[in-house]
Amino acid sequence: MDQLRIPGPTPCPPEVLKAMGRQMINHRGPEFQKILADVTAKLKQIFQTKNDVLILTGSGTGGLEATAVNMLSPGDKVLSVSIGVFGDRFANIAKTFGAEIVSYKVEWGKAADPDAVKKALKDNPGVKAVLVTHNETSTGVTNDLGAISKVVKEAGKLLLVDAISSMSSINLPVDEWQCDVVISGSQKGWMVPPGLAFVSVSEEAWKAHAAAKMPRFYWDFMRAKSILVEKSQNPWTPAISIIFAMDVALDMMLKEGLPNIVARHARVAQLARDGIKAIGLPLFAEESHASNTVTAVAGAGGLDIKKLRQLLKDEHKIVVSGGQSTLDGKIFRIGHLGWVTEKDIKEVIAAIKVSAPKAGFTGK
Amino acid sequence: MDQLRIPGPTPCPPEVLKAMGRQMINHRGPEFQKILADVTAKLKQIFQTKNDVLILTGSGTGGLEATAVNMLSPGDKVLSVSIGVFGDRFANIAKTFGAEIVSYKVEWGKAADPDAVKKALKDNPGVKAVLVTHNETSTGVTNDLGAISKVVKEAGKLLLVDAISSMSSINLPVDEWQCDVVISGSQKGWMVPPGLAFVSVSEEAWKAHAAAKMPRFYWDFMRAKSILVEKSQNPWTPAISIIFAMDVALDMMLKEGLPNIVARHARVAQLARDGIKAIGLPLFAEESHASNTVTAVAGAGGLDIKKLRQLLKDEHKIVVSGGQSTLDGKIFRIGHLGWVTEKDIKEVIAAIKVSAPKAGFTGK
Repeated sequence: MDQLRIPGPTPCPPEVLKAMGRQMINHRGPEFQKILADVTAKLKQIFQTKNDVLILTGSGTGGLEATAVNMLSPGDKVLSVSIGVFGDRFANIAKTFGAEIVSYKVEWGKAADPDAVKKALKDNPGVKAVLVTHNETSTGVTNDLGAISKVVKEAGKLLLVDAISSMSSINLPVDEWQCDVVISGSQKGWMVPPGLAFVSVSEEAWKAHAAAKMPRFYWDFMRAKSILVEKSQNPWTPAISIIFAMDVALDMMLKEGLPNIVARHARVAQLARDGIKAIGLPLFAEESHASNTVTAVAGAGGLDIKKLRQLLKDEHKIVVSGGQSTLDGKIFRIGHLGWVTEKDIKEVIAAIKVSAPKAGFTGK
Repeated sequence: MDQLRIPGPTPCPPEVLKAMGRQMINHRGPEFQKILADVTAKLKQIFQTKNDVLILTGSGTGGLEATAVNMLSPGDKVLSVSIGVFGDRFANIAKTFGAEIVSYKVEWGKAADPDAVKKALKDNPGVKAVLVTHNETSTGVTNDLGAISKVVKEAGKLLLVDAISSMSSINLPVDEWQCDVVISGSQKGWMVPPGLAFVSVSEEAWKAHAAAKMPRFYWDFMRAKSILVEKSQNPWTPAISIIFAMDVALDMMLKEGLPNIVARHARVAQLARDGIKAIGLPLFAEESHASNTVTAVAGAGGLDIKKLRQLLKDEHKIVVSGGQSTLDGKIFRIGHLGWVTEKDIKEVIAAIKVSAPKAGFTGK
């Protein structure tokens, strides 16, 4: 089996895979109702929130779409804070459903400046909501969400956060930071296969929901909440197996403890960055905001990134990601989130050290 | 382990559950590309089509929403042929996104009359598309889709078919019947856990797609097709485990052979209906159009349906479904689709025979 070191899907522990193989049960029966209630309660602990948390069957991108259509009306002005592919995607979704986008784009590899967000909100008083990516998977950058939240909430705007690749791995206290909607996906730090999105919904977000006029049916938050409260069920047949798996993974996470998980991700990420620098390869992300779930490495010194990735796979059974969009061929990305230890990342760094010269890297 | 006899999710064979427990791989890597291409090719065989078949991560209801938003524009007039809860849901989705619904509703328990569809199309020449449920899970009725298709296509309309609980179990030759979009879901006859929807898309449907203006992003058929053709990938991270499981289940299905599967479902359903009648309970669906995947049984002779279901579960470890919407408490439903044999249904009938008198059934 290859060692999967991409920023999602992430490897799953054996206990989780065993849960994936459980036989089906009635999704409208008492046994499943209890599991869904338990998983929801445990999710809230990791989200550090008293807000509602809803489980949607779909990819993370489905969670982004759900957020847009539940919070906005056609014609609403929203500020998009984009630092990469996924920030652009969030804005693109809102635009597709009729939002008017005010765009604050940051050079890829850098984080958003909270002061610039403040200024954009001042310059555009009609903005209703701010779309922001907590952790940008495409560039390996983590935004300073606490500081951004401060300026957004001071301005009285709705804060909609893509935390797909950060929640459960990087500290994100939803209530403390007053985030209105926060989205994550099962295949990231949760150590579970893809197929579920999670969203937390604040009281203020529910008020926005009541006024929001973008058309929605499958993704409707209120349909999900009503039947959850009333019957501990999902409105549509959910991905039962993945909920079984989440139940097991969340127990593992709560046993380790969120602060310990966050600290482990920080240690592992530091090891990755130090290792890459020791090899002499440049980090793509500005180090002050480097992500603790994914490290992006730039090409340099004659390195053929495609060849490096092939060598890592063929000779070391290690799979890392390439770059997306305009970064294709220009960076590679090491995922270190979820079920990952120092030992795993040391192996990855050792393999890169051996393989880089074979892939043309001359050192400088 | 209970015997799950509800109309989805259905029990999964051990080979399928084993595939569900496979470790994650890169959804953008060559190994997964091959699996996705294989699964797509095998799906086309069961759909009996040369049309595109797309795999979407979501519930069956997501497949219905996807179909509406990819085929229609706000203001489009559509004929809804509804014979139950799921027919109503399909119309409700289209309406939510701005379609104007012309409603042909049939008394629950009965099938749609193709002549009435013909008349409705004649009376409403502005209709662009017809929404029809092949097999109505809520009532246990299968529409005569071949005959309905004939009048719809003679009138030159787009035919959008909810085949969530029929495709792979009941004969539905997509090309022969000229169905433009046909939707199914993994947790039905496919013997796989929930979390994926499948849609076939005809050439005429692609023309409609190009003109359709309902907003769409996550569900966009063209995004799914482009990356499938170009890279054998999904646009968003798919439910990898469920695609692994489909790969195995489709091999089992093709080994058994579609005509044999269809014949097995017909035999098993006949056993269910004969067994229920022998006990003296009335079938809810008109027998000429009774479904071969789900049998709906009406209450009679003092039968307490809720109590019967509880007895079946407690004393026989058999789970059957209740009624939905206004049929709650008035019918129960036996699912017999996917991984099901004559022996399974004989056990269910034997258990009902023993339990019905304990649940108040006096025979007449």
